[in-house]
Amino acid sequence: MHADHTIDATEETVHYAWDNSLDPVLEVDPGDVVTFECRDATDGQLGPSATVDDLRSMTVEGHALTGPVAVDGAEPGDTLAVDFLDFDHHGWGVSYVVPGEQESGLLPEEFPDAYVHTWDLDGDTARFDDDVAVPIDAFPGCAGVAPGENGAHSTIPPRAVGGNLDIKHLSAGSTLYLPVEVPGGSFSTGDCHAAQGDGEVCLTGIEAPMDVTARLRIADRDVDAPSFETTGPFTPTGADEPMFATSGVRDDLMDASKVALSRMLDHLEAERGLSRPNAYVLASAAVDLKINQVVDAPNWTVSAYLPESLFR
Amino acid sequence: MHADHTIDATEETVHYAWDNSLDPVLEVDPGDVVTFECRDATDGQLGPSATVDDLRSMTVEGHALTGPVAVDGAEPGDTLAVDFLDFDHHGWGVSYVVPGEQESGLLPEEFPDAYVHTWDLDGDTARFDDDVAVPIDAFPGCAGVAPGENGAHSTIPPRAVGGNLDIKHLSAGSTLYLPVEVPGGSFSTGDCHAAQGDGEVCLTGIEAPMDVTARLRIADRDVDAPSFETTGPFTPTGADEPMFATSGVRDDLMDASKVALSRMLDHLEAERGLSRPNAYVLASAAVDLKINQVVDAPNWTVSAYLPESLFR
Repeated sequence: MHADHTIDATEETVHYAWDNSLDPVLEVDPGDVVTFECRDATDGQLGPSATVDDLRSMTVEGHALTGPVAVDGAEPGDTLAVDFLDFDHHGWGVSYVVPGEQESGLLPEEFPDAYVHTWDLDGDTARFDDDVAVPIDAFPGCAGVAPGENGAHSTIPPRAVGGNLDIKHLSAGSTLYLPVEVPGGSFSTGDCHAAQGDGEVCLTGIEAPMDVTARLRIADRDVDAPSFETTGPFTPTGADEPMFATSGVRDDLMDASKVALSRMLDHLEAERGLSRPNAYVLASAAVDLKINQVVDAPNWTVSAYLPESLFR
Repeated sequence: MHADHTIDATEETVHYAWDNSLDPVLEVDPGDVVTFECRDATDGQLGPSATVDDLRSMTVEGHALTGPVAVDGAEPGDTLAVDFLDFDHHGWGVSYVVPGEQESGLLPEEFPDAYVHTWDLDGDTARFDDDVAVPIDAFPGCAGVAPGENGAHSTIPPRAVGGNLDIKHLSAGSTLYLPVEVPGGSFSTGDCHAAQGDGEVCLTGIEAPMDVTARLRIADRDVDAPSFETTGPFTPTGADEPMFATSGVRDDLMDASKVALSRMLDHLEAERGLSRPNAYVLASAAVDLKINQVVDAPNWTVSAYLPESLFR
C-alpha cells in the first residue's frame, strides 16, 4: 500500500540551490510515489520558439529543482532508493551553447558564440530537422538529496549526494541509490532531458519541461556515492546498430575526449552536411563518448560513437 | 576478385615494436584478404595453465605483432581500411595483473601483487568460473600501420597510426580506418582479446592467441587518426539488459574512473562474493566505463556498468 502525491512547480516548490535548510514541501512514507512537475533547465526562460536573443537575455541562477521531499524515517547513513517510473514531456525541447570559457561545453575554444536549437518532441521521437530524428529516452539531469554540509551549494557540479549527474541511463525503470546526509533525505529533481549522448558535450541535452514520477524508498544497501540499476538504453535504440566512431588518443582523458569529439564534428560537417554548431548540438544529444582503455600508458583511448540510424 | 593469404606466426613474421624499417613479410593488392596467425600478448609465455610464478618469470619486450603487410599502391596521405572478418580463438585465454606502479592497471595502489586468471574459451563463451561466464566478442588489441617517424616505437601506447588502441568494438564486421604514413602502409596486428570491458581496467582483457582474418583496402576517406565503423557489441550481449552501475564524481576524468571502478569492486566483493583481484580481472573483461558528462564544471561523472547476466 502506498500513497500517490503530486507536486506542482510553483514559487513555493521550486528551488535553485542544494541547501539542507530548505523546508520539505512534502513529507511521504517510504514506498510512496511522487509526481514532480519539473521546469526545464532554463526555468521557462526559453520556450519552443527560443532564439539566440532569448538565450542572451537569459539569467539562470541555477537549475530549477522541484522539492525537496522528505521520506519519513530516512536518517543520515541510510540509503535512499529512487525508482524512476515515468517521464511525461510537453512536446518541445531546446539545446543551446552558452558563450564563455567555462560554459560552452567540451570545446569552448571552437564555439565562442551563443547558439540555440529547438526540438519537436512527439511521442517517442525528438525531431532535430527534416532528415534527422533522435529517439526519446528521458531522464532527470538533476536528482539528489540535500548535502550534510550547511549552506547553499551550486546546482551545476554533481556531488556524492547526486545532483547534476547527467547520467542518461537514469531512464524509466531505473533505480538510483543515494547516501542520505540529513534527516528525511530531502530529495529534489529537475533539469529533464528528452535525450542525451554520453558526455553531454555541448553543455545541454534536449532540455525539456517534464513530469517525473518516482517511488521513494529506504534501501538496504550501503553507498557513499551514487549507484544505480538500469537497463539502458546503452545505444539510442537499445540494441547494437551500425555506428561511425572517431578516436582520440592522448595522455589525458579530457584531451582524448576533445579530439574524439572534434573529429566527429568534422565527420558530421563533411559527410552529413551539418553546420558545425548544429553538429555540436546533435552530438550532445545523440553521440556517446566511451572510454576504450585507461591502462596503455602514457596514452589513453576515448572514442565518440554516432548511430547511423539517426539519419533517414 | 581478390586473393587470400595466410601469415603464420614465426620468428620471421612476428615483431615487437612499430618500426618503418621492417621489411614487409607480405605484399598484397588492395582488397586482398589476409589471415594473421597472432600469438597472445605474452608471446606464448603464459599458457592455459599459467601460474603467478610463470607471470613473475615472464619477460615481454612488447606485444607480439604479426606482419607487416604492405598494400600495393598505398601512399602517405592515403587511408587504409581494415575490414575485420573473423577471429578464431584456440580454446583458452588469460588475464593478469602485473605489479609495479606503471603496470597494474587503473588501481595500481590497490593491487601491488601479481595475479593470474585463466579462462576456458568454448564457442562463444568465456568461462570465468563455475558461476560466471562472459560472452566472447573478439577483437585485436593492437592494429596499426607503421609510423612515419623513424625508429623502434614501443607497442604499449597507441598513437594516431593505431597500435594498442584496445577498442573492443573492432569486432568481426567492423572496419578500422588508419592514416598511412609510409609507402605500402605496413599493417600489423595482434594482442587479441576474447572480451574486454570499456577501460580494460586491470591492464589485460581476456588475452588469447587467435587467427585474425581481415580485408585490406585503400579507402576514399581522409583521416589523421583512427576512426571506425562498428555494430558493437555495445553491451556484452548486444542488447539492453539489466546492469548495476557505480558512479565516480570528480574534477578529473581519471580520478572519476578510479572511484567508479573501486566502488564496482566493492560491489563485486560484497554482493557477488568475488575476491578483490578476481573482481578486478572480471571488471577488466566485462565492466564498461562510460563518460556520463564532461561539462558540469568542476565535477565530471564517470560510471562503471556491470551486466547482471554474467551471473547464473
